[in-house]
Amino acid sequence: MTTSSYQVTGMTCGHCVNAVSSELQGLDGVQDVTVDLNAHGASTVTVTSAAPVQREQVVAALDEAGDYHLLDV
Amino acid sequence: MTTSSYQVTGMTCGHCVNAVSSELQGLDGVQDVTVDLNAHGASTVTVTSAAPVQREQVVAALDEAGDYHLLDV
Repeated sequence: MTTSSYQVTGMTCGHCVNAVSSELQGLDGVQDVTVDLNAHGASTVTVTSAAPVQREQVVAALDEAGDYHLLDV
Repeated sequence: MTTSSYQVTGMTCGHCVNAVSSELQGLDGVQDVTVDLNAHGASTVTVTSAAPVQREQVVAALDEAGDYHLLDV
């Protein structure tokens, strides 16, 4: 099992949390997604998956969910 | 036809705009709802209806849509 955390910008409310979580849940092998919402900055999104998730897949899922972007850290 | 504007707090993004708009659209006689989103303060919500909408109905619709509140102006 792999757990990765991402810094995601553009999330402002619970609706955004739901949109992002459900797109990430849809990725292959993802078991769990948690979001620590920081409405005024970057939110921490933690993804637990059977195998490591590719960064491009996360970027694509965020784009599908809305105007959310991955911070380079 | 009656057009009323309200100052609503708690809206931060397009999802909130959709939630509030669709609840207000559901009120009897409402023809149109427009929202001018101010993510960091009170957003202006304009409701056009066949007959005047009661303030309590607006308050109830906002509550139904989420944690949105009418400012007393």
